[in-house]
Amino acid sequence: MIDDERQVRTLIERWAAAVRAGDLDGVAADHADDIVMHDVPENLRGIEAYRAAWPPFFGWLAQGVAFDIRSLEVTAGADVAYAHALLRCGPAEEEREARLRITFGLRKEDGRWVVAHEHHSFPVVDPVAAEG
Amino acid sequence: MIDDERQVRTLIERWAAAVRAGDLDGVAADHADDIVMHDVPENLRGIEAYRAAWPPFFGWLAQGVAFDIRSLEVTAGADVAYAHALLRCGPAEEEREARLRITFGLRKEDGRWVVAHEHHSFPVVDPVAAEG
Repeated sequence: MIDDERQVRTLIERWAAAVRAGDLDGVAADHADDIVMHDVPENLRGIEAYRAAWPPFFGWLAQGVAFDIRSLEVTAGADVAYAHALLRCGPAEEEREARLRITFGLRKEDGRWVVAHEHHSFPVVDPVAAEG
Repeated sequence: MIDDERQVRTLIERWAAAVRAGDLDGVAADHADDIVMHDVPENLRGIEAYRAAWPPFFGWLAQGVAFDIRSLEVTAGADVAYAHALLRCGPAEEEREARLRITFGLRKEDGRWVVAHEHHSFPVVDPVAAEG
């Protein structure tokens, strides 16, 4: 279990580094074909939709936006795991707090962990006013 | 595994029924003492903070707000599981779409499943505009 938790933690840290690098293949690596993503603005299903969601975000990051994991807690069994993280994500001069919340769901396929679910959100005090 | 998935599904459906009934003990049942909740407006830690978050929401539901699970997908191992759901949540006359996303993280304690993580959010197109 300890070893599985370490593997999941390493996977997520590698993923965040790929996000920061704008490396789409690195971001999509270790993700299941049938991934279900609840992204900040919309819900996506399947690895192709997942890949398509990233390039606009890379453009935003390239303007100097942070994407730093500030806390990461992993719970891993033998073949299913989940993890939740808080990230600093926003323009570096503005974003001092870890406001982005991400939850990951993972399963082991042929002895290796893959992410099959991601849920990204920012806290919103009034979700009705936030509709865009 | 099939039996574990059924147990987790039943637990979540019972929890949603307790939410609709405004039954705080029913909502908090089957939750870990150290639960971490990423609620729509804020992040909470521990069962007491979790319990304290519900009464204001019950007041909103009592005005005729829906809280209906429209889809629920469960992935369960022997001792760790996660699930993600879409719910119709809002004033019944307005809310026809399943806009509320919830991800659950669970672990088995002494042979019984408990929820140790919940992440609730609505999709938000412009998170910066949604602040406050």
